[in-house]
Amino acid sequence: MKWSETEKKAAQVALQRAKERETGTLLKEIRSKASAIAELDEVWHLHSFLSAKRHEIDGKYDDRDSVLISVLARLLKERWLHLDELEGLAQDKLALLAALACT
Amino acid sequence: MKWSETEKKAAQVALQRAKERETGTLLKEIRSKASAIAELDEVWHLHSFLSAKRHEIDGKYDDRDSVLISVLARLLKERWLHLDELEGLAQDKLALLAALACT
Repeated sequence: MKWSETEKKAAQVALQRAKERETGTLLKEIRSKASAIAELDEVWHLHSFLSAKRHEIDGKYDDRDSVLISVLARLLKERWLHLDELEGLAQDKLALLAALACT
Repeated sequence: MKWSETEKKAAQVALQRAKERETGTLLKEIRSKASAIAELDEVWHLHSFLSAKRHEIDGKYDDRDSVLISVLARLLKERWLHLDELEGLAQDKLALLAALACT
């Protein structure tokens, strides 16, 4: 799939926006979990939760052309992005994303 | 090194006490670190900190006879235990621990 410079730029802006949203939610969740910790086991639960999140987020915001459609589709599906935030993309990509985000 | 049942029991009580102290301090530290988190990078710093602590604490409170002296010496050195909390131990062990904790 080919990405024009304009599309690429629009996708990167959207990715950044989604990452800020997901990060903001994660920070709140961590502060809330940490403030409720009363035992060592709960510390290790928090650690396991962070390990999973680190792995997930590290691999998620990948803007290489070859994976960009599936990255955007995932963010739409997870509701970190909305389709109307991707208006800079060509119609065929928007139609594909709309379809992928529903599957 | 031989451990009598009485000594073993005294060492286990001391280990439990040290673990509660270290855990209590760790919980406070985590709550404090988590409440100050404002960026994603700081989340990953907390994760790395917890990885190191998990590794450290998992291996630390080992009450097998063969390692008990070095475990206790380490806890004395780190000030999670005080020598007068090991009164149930024989004099030779107490002298050895006092020496090891100073090295």
